[in-house]
This record gives sequence, structure tokens and C-alpha cells, in this order.
Amino acid sequence: MKMIIAIVQDKDSNRLTDKLSENNLKTTKLSTTGGFLREGNTTFMIGCNDDEVDDALGIIKENCSQRDQMVAPISPMGGNADSYIPKPVKVEVGGATVFVLPIDSFFQF
Amino acid sequence: MKMIIAIVQDKDSNRLTDKLSENNLKTTKLSTTGGFLREGNTTFMIGCNDDEVDDALGIIKENCSQRDQMVAPISPMGGNADSYIPKPVKVEVGGATVFVLPIDSFFQF
Amino acid sequence: MKMIIAIVQDKDSNRLTDKLSENNLKTTKLSTTGGFLREGNTTFMIGCNDDEVDDALGIIKENCSQRDQMVAPISPMGGNADSYIPKPVKVEVGGATVFVLPIDSFFQF
Ligand code: NI
Ligand code: NI
Ligand code: NI
Repeated sequence: MKMIIAIVQDKDSNRLTDKLSENNLKTTKLSTTGGFLREGNTTFMIGCNDDEVDDALGIIKENCSQRDQMVAPISPMGGNADSYIPKPVKVEVGGATVFVLPIDSFFQF
Repeated sequence: MKMIIAIVQDKDSNRLTDKLSENNLKTTKLSTTGGFLREGNTTFMIGCNDDEVDDALGIIKENCSQRDQMVAPISPMGGNADSYIPKPVKVEVGGATVFVLPIDSFFQF
Repeated sequence: MKMIIAIVQDKDSNRLTDKLSENNLKTTKLSTTGGFLREGNTTFMIGCNDDEVDDALGIIKENCSQRDQMVAPISPMGGNADSYIPKPVKVEVGGATVFVLPIDSFFQF
């Protein structure tokens, strides 16, 4: 048994939950806050067998990796809205920090 | 030293807190969400000496094990309330998922 | 790699966050509840290299240790407010419970 602790962005949390569930990986979620970023994130605790660790890591990587996203910028306040043509800007979203911890024993009561 | 991480149903949380406290086991509680069940659960982090692990596991087992409970079902909407005799149904409640983790070192400042 | 789990009082949480950040230590925060104390506390999960553990422990000790604080007591209700001279009382604040856990592997996606 291992415990995987994965810290991901809130926006990727629901998709990750679904994908882990589809693969019969049991997870418990904690609402957490990054020390740097003000924004909220979600911490997953996943208890799994040794031979399921690679599966779980693959699912996290596939669904939560850092990637670029084009977003429409907010119009500048007080500007001339008619002449302003918003140009999408590239921002980085997602990303996962993952720890695999050893477990001495596991029980289900 | 070991760290016991126990995920239990919210309904068993207060009783478990009391019983651990009566046995001088120090615990920290996190509000968590199951990946499958929508309902909330509580995660206990219990730091204890090696020779206290069995005590702690016994207390969790005694107070949080999965068991059957008879509950009165909700009356069917739009049915004839006069002729409807609710028959209690058996549901499973409780249950605990428990991990025992090794600890390298422990400090109290 | 190690994972440091530090449970500190809410009142020390912001200062600890800042100091860890200044020392390039990445942290994730959880809102937690003590089993004994009713009051809230904050749990820090700090992932760091083996040679950064002493730094992190020093920062936690410096910013969260238990210490005495003089506080003005609440005036007794119904007493004669004019003749009552509040005498500051000494209370213990702060304190940190810290676990250092081994980590099998670490990933950043
Ligand atoms: Ni597999
Ligand atoms: Ni004992
Ligand atoms: Ni250093």
C-alpha cells in the first residue's frame, strides 16, 4: 500500500475525481490553500496498492498537468470600449504536486 | 512514533474525538470529502507512540465500524398519506478507512 | 525528500507562511480543528529536500513556539466598573506539533 498525496488546482479537481473513480481508485479530498498563490487548491489523498501507483500517477498527469490556456483579457476600465479589441493572452493553468508516501498498514472497519 | 490517518463518517466524528481524548490520544481533525460519496466525512490525524497504535485502532474500530441501521423511509410524494404505513429500511452507516504511516521524527515546540 | 506536517495556531499561521515563502519552502495549508481545543488551527504540509528539513524546523520553532502573553482580562459582568482595575494575566499562546514523514517519490506535473 501507498498513500499518494496530490495537490491540484480547483479547476481540475472534478475531472480528476471522476477519472480516479472510473479506475476504481479511492480518494479523499481536502480543501487546501497554497502558501504562495492566494487561490484555493484541492489535495487528494489516494490510498492504493503498490501496483496501482503508476496508474494513479498517469491519471493525475493526464488531467492536471500545467498547460497554456488562451483567455480573453478584461477590458481596461475607462477605456473606449468601441475601439478596444481584446486580444487573447496566454496563461499557465493546472499543475500538480505529488508525493508518494509509504504505509505501514491499512485497515477497513 | 506513527501517524494514523483515519477517514470516518461525520456522524461518528464527535464520539471518536471524545473516546480518543479519554485515552489521551492527541488528534487533529480535517473536514474532507469522499471521492465517491457526495457526503462529508472527517479525517483524523493521530500522532502516537508505537505501543499506542493498537489502542487507537481498537477505539476507531469500536466507534466507527460499518453497521446496519433501521431508518424510517421518506413518504412517497403525491401518495395517499393516510393509507401509507412507512416500513423501516435497513441502511449501512459508519465505516472507517485507516492508514498507519511511519514517522521519521517528531517535535513539539 | 521529506514531508513536514506542522500543526500550529491560527494566529501564527500568516507569519509562518511568509517566513517559509521567504526561504523558498513550498507549503500547502489545511484548516484543521484540534481534538482537545475547540479553537481552529492550521496544518502546514511542507515538501522539502532532506537538507532543508533543519531550516524548515528552525523557522517553525522561531515563529510558532509556545510562549507567554499578557492579556487584559474581561471586566467581570455586573461588577462596579469604576473601581475595577483590570490586571493583565499571563496566558500561553502558540505551540507547534511537527511530524517529519519519509517520502518514496515526488512528482511535479
Ligand atoms: Ni492497474
Ligand atoms: Ni496503551
Ligand atoms: Ni538550507
